[in-house]
Amino acid sequence: MAVYTQVTAEEINEFIASYDVGEVVSFKGIAEGSENTNYYLQTTQASFILTLFEARVNPDDLPFYMGLMDHLNHKDIVCATPVRDRSGRNLTTLCGRPAALITFLQGMAINKPQPDHCRQLGGELARMHLAAADFGMSRENDLSVSGWEKLVADCEDGADRCAPGLCGTLRQELSFLKANWPDDLPRGIIHADLFPDNVFFLEGKLSGLIDYYFACTDFLAYDIAVCMNSWCFEADGSFNVTKSTQLLKGYNEVRQLDERELAALPTLCRGAALRFLLTRLYDWLNRVEGAMVQVKDPTEYLTKLKFHQGVKNASAYGLDI
Amino acid sequence: MAVYTQVTAEEINEFIASYDVGEVVSFKGIAEGSENTNYYLQTTQASFILTLFEARVNPDDLPFYMGLMDHLNHKDIVCATPVRDRSGRNLTTLCGRPAALITFLQGMAINKPQPDHCRQLGGELARMHLAAADFGMSRENDLSVSGWEKLVADCEDGADRCAPGLCGTLRQELSFLKANWPDDLPRGIIHADLFPDNVFFLEGKLSGLIDYYFACTDFLAYDIAVCMNSWCFEADGSFNVTKSTQLLKGYNEVRQLDERELAALPTLCRGAALRFLLTRLYDWLNRVEGAMVQVKDPTEYLTKLKFHQGVKNASAYGLDI
Repeated sequence: MAVYTQVTAEEINEFIASYDVGEVVSFKGIAEGSENTNYYLQTTQASFILTLFEARVNPDDLPFYMGLMDHLNHKDIVCATPVRDRSGRNLTTLCGRPAALITFLQGMAINKPQPDHCRQLGGELARMHLAAADFGMSRENDLSVSGWEKLVADCEDGADRCAPGLCGTLRQELSFLKANWPDDLPRGIIHADLFPDNVFFLEGKLSGLIDYYFACTDFLAYDIAVCMNSWCFEADGSFNVTKSTQLLKGYNEVRQLDERELAALPTLCRGAALRFLLTRLYDWLNRVEGAMVQVKDPTEYLTKLKFHQGVKNASAYGLDI
Repeated sequence: MAVYTQVTAEEINEFIASYDVGEVVSFKGIAEGSENTNYYLQTTQASFILTLFEARVNPDDLPFYMGLMDHLNHKDIVCATPVRDRSGRNLTTLCGRPAALITFLQGMAINKPQPDHCRQLGGELARMHLAAADFGMSRENDLSVSGWEKLVADCEDGADRCAPGLCGTLRQELSFLKANWPDDLPRGIIHADLFPDNVFFLEGKLSGLIDYYFACTDFLAYDIAVCMNSWCFEADGSFNVTKSTQLLKGYNEVRQLDERELAALPTLCRGAALRFLLTRLYDWLNRVEGAMVQVKDPTEYLTKLKFHQGVKNASAYGLDI
């Protein structure tokens, strides 16, 4: 939510000259994306987002992200897509940072998704999974079980400062997930961070997905588990089974979930809850006073984790499909 | 440089329904303006800036600012202008804050202004002064001599923490300015904060002025003094007399400065330097750890003040007009 790198008018004019997109007419830093610097850029031809990738992004992963967005776009999945410069590169450098000029996606993120939004989300997620099936690259999910193990080790000393007893909860949950994490589910490219901020709607219709910078290769159903956590809980921490039912229905209409995936859903949801609990806890414990970043509340995901711990089987998610 | 108030998609859709500007297609918080929250807003008809006025702005002053922008726009001074809603109001409420929908001004602020930019700035500033002459409202400059006196009192205890000896410098300068501040110069509406961030250029031509939220009634030549401080010093603190000459020439071509104004220029420049030194010092002394605001360096304006203290007469500003 911040502009980490200031780009001057002189720098942006020089940068844009290497693209065939017209002249810059407006250029404003925007408060979007928690990891990167983003600018809204308007030229005489069109609008764009200029993204500068900051230190937390591994530059080696960028060709995967760019290639994926490009691939999905060619498969008619509406998403922001990197534009190629005159020499054909979709990833260049600006102010010493990797930079990409991305097409501007109309629409707005919805703060309080309704069941119909969840249904549309499910359908688009499934379409994305199918469209990515023949994408030629892969990227390991460094925020799956072994990543959680590292994060638990990094956070266990401070965890109880965040919530009493949290350290024990983390250790027990990690141990449960290590013993029970599935290994035989359908795999493919997943978005892995499809929070409501990353899904745009226009006049009530889903208009596109953004922010593919956690995309990786993992169980397809894990992507549903991430969405279940971020779309189907109310602000008071209660689980909205109508929303999860619609999410699963929307998905299933496009790509049928198999029995193993359904059976694994409660475990996948616990994993997804732990993943966001751990990264938020890490950021909370390592927050820098004065940094222009809002630290999100880790305990929101502790509440969600506890809900999933109580789930006996996937029918608790309203599954009737 | 921050989004202080988060407006949801639901709230902006409801807000925009009271204007005749089409449907919202995009809405993004932008890092512009240090006092207010600004959003870039694109509708099916046009682009806008949505401004939410935060606590530091006195709501009683808003009709003056809105009226001024409206007045200037009707006089062909290109500036962002408030749009009226269906019931004719150019100032409404959103998320409990005064809010205005402002036309979107094309162009970009220039980081390193060149002499030609300064000349264009001077001309536009003079045109703005002339165009505002028949604006019916007025607003006292609360950041002139009596305002500085208050700020010196608020800051003197902490000043030396910022720069050794600063407290004494502030007291002496205030006492000099109280004794020497002019009282008989041509008055009118001034912008009072016309830093390079607030002036847009498009393909090298000045395309408009923004951020009228310090505008007030004061000596017209004081506006030049503010620009002299913010446009004519180099990053190393040196004064660029070529730029100041062009600024004054550009102004004088449109509105001839009289002898009293020229004679007062060194004093006005000292006043303008003290004004920004004091507000920056106040913000520096009262900075909140963790606040998402970048505190600007007060000593930049101490260097500028010292330069003007050494100026004997306006010819030091390259005045040959």
